[in-house]
Amino acid sequence: MHTAFDRLVRFANNDGQTFYGEAPPLAFDPSSLIGEKVPVFEGGEPWSPAFKLSGKTQTIAKILSPIPHTPIYHCVGLNYRQHIVESKNPMPKHPALFNKPSDALAGPLDDISIQKEAYGLDYEGELCIVIGKDIKGLAKDEDPLDYVLGYTVGNDFTSRYWQDPKLSSYQAGYAKSFDGFGPIGPFIVSTKVVPHPGELQLTVRVNSEQRQQANTNDLVFDIKEIIKFLARGRTIRVGTIIMTGTPSGVGAFLTPPSFLKHGDVVMVEIEKIGIIKNRVIFQG
Amino acid sequence: MHTAFDRLVRFANNDGQTFYGEAPPLAFDPSSLIGEKVPVFEGGEPWSPAFKLSGKTQTIAKILSPIPHTPIYHCVGLNYRQHIVESKNPMPKHPALFNKPSDALAGPLDDISIQKEAYGLDYEGELCIVIGKDIKGLAKDEDPLDYVLGYTVGNDFTSRYWQDPKLSSYQAGYAKSFDGFGPIGPFIVSTKVVPHPGELQLTVRVNSEQRQQANTNDLVFDIKEIIKFLARGRTIRVGTIIMTGTPSGVGAFLTPPSFLKHGDVVMVEIEKIGIIKNRVIFQG
Repeated sequence: MHTAFDRLVRFANNDGQTFYGEAPPLAFDPSSLIGEKVPVFEGGEPWSPAFKLSGKTQTIAKILSPIPHTPIYHCVGLNYRQHIVESKNPMPKHPALFNKPSDALAGPLDDISIQKEAYGLDYEGELCIVIGKDIKGLAKDEDPLDYVLGYTVGNDFTSRYWQDPKLSSYQAGYAKSFDGFGPIGPFIVSTKVVPHPGELQLTVRVNSEQRQQANTNDLVFDIKEIIKFLARGRTIRVGTIIMTGTPSGVGAFLTPPSFLKHGDVVMVEIEKIGIIKNRVIFQG
Repeated sequence: MHTAFDRLVRFANNDGQTFYGEAPPLAFDPSSLIGEKVPVFEGGEPWSPAFKLSGKTQTIAKILSPIPHTPIYHCVGLNYRQHIVESKNPMPKHPALFNKPSDALAGPLDDISIQKEAYGLDYEGELCIVIGKDIKGLAKDEDPLDYVLGYTVGNDFTSRYWQDPKLSSYQAGYAKSFDGFGPIGPFIVSTKVVPHPGELQLTVRVNSEQRQQANTNDLVFDIKEIIKFLARGRTIRVGTIIMTGTPSGVGAFLTPPSFLKHGDVVMVEIEKIGIIKNRVIFQG
């Protein structure tokens, strides 16, 4: 869809006021933007027709999640061929879908406070879609990308303990819905800037050690197929976040398994979009 | 929690204006209230401190879902012992949880428009909880019922085709998240009126034929346990709907299986709360 922005950043200035701004074309690591002055938008939310550059600038003090609230996260499990192989699952016939609530949101540089009970904490780097117009079913001749506000980077944090089918009766959502378990950012990059989301390199590092490395061309169900499937007989609201699945290399399937520890920093990087870096702080 | 209402009904009058009202103590079947005059509330949403009777009355023309929007539905699968037996599942160690989005909402007398692709349509009558205060984790000495606005009746409509583990990779939510697949009502009944939610008779009829009949004392995880489990390390927002699971007798496990047909009326009745009656209208 047409957007007023190319690379949208949401941030607070030194007075704690929040703004939507246009990130510089070459900005990639949000840490580099702290203290930078950027053009800001006016006119409400980034999907509103009135949303446009105000002609003013503001200085970034803290980078926030690119939207403050989401109606819901729809998350695809088992969508990279190599991850399906490592997890010993059969090839899915349709996208395997579960949800996270809005309170899973966190910013691209936020520390994530980890509840004691979130045992077996793991990362899942993912390409995310932000929906920019309500979809009420898609007609055959409609292009799902006409409903996409843009792309962002996400980490589908997971407590592997609670994901165990014996404890969860196979339902994945609960293990992934602790507060802050879905950081996204640093930008929402428009479909004009990323016209080909199916050829992006994705890398995950834990404290600089590379753990996941894949290309979105390995997706079983691509962006268009996921949106079409999701919108079948139901309304997908503006601001909905779709996490498209994670590639191989998660901690649970390393030999031996390696879960995140207090103070670890997980960095998810996607080509042409940006980097999110979240430190995990274990409570108690 | 303390509420300004005993039996809350949301409705439209003849001019299409919507109100929250107090249903008569003996009201049970919402059809009987059409054309009745009831006291109405002012002061915003039913959980707001300012919510109180206005001293005015209005005449009910159409009964609506008791809340207009929900942050999310949390639904418990496999929670009645007899349904676990009929579905040949192992006894769950913890509540099996999945979600529906807000667009699953429908009113207690609404026709539900069924998309062609929602193959194998089935009912699941359920006792539902509406959360009345944000919960951010529960301390050991806290009473989960202090966060309950009240109880209502729900139907967790399900497309058994899409719920098939081979198509869904075991994720239950998608099959249950078509628009209108979570009608609730007719009232939100306060915890003062229903102090013992664990001893309520639940009955489901399809076109007057009884299909489900159980008591909430058969629940594996009771109301308090469900809320405690849900609130672990995460925020449960005011207005959240919790569907507590369905008993045995769903259409999929009848011999032979019997799915809902165009024009069928599903009636879910829960003692002390009320009745919802939804006709299913197949599209195309």
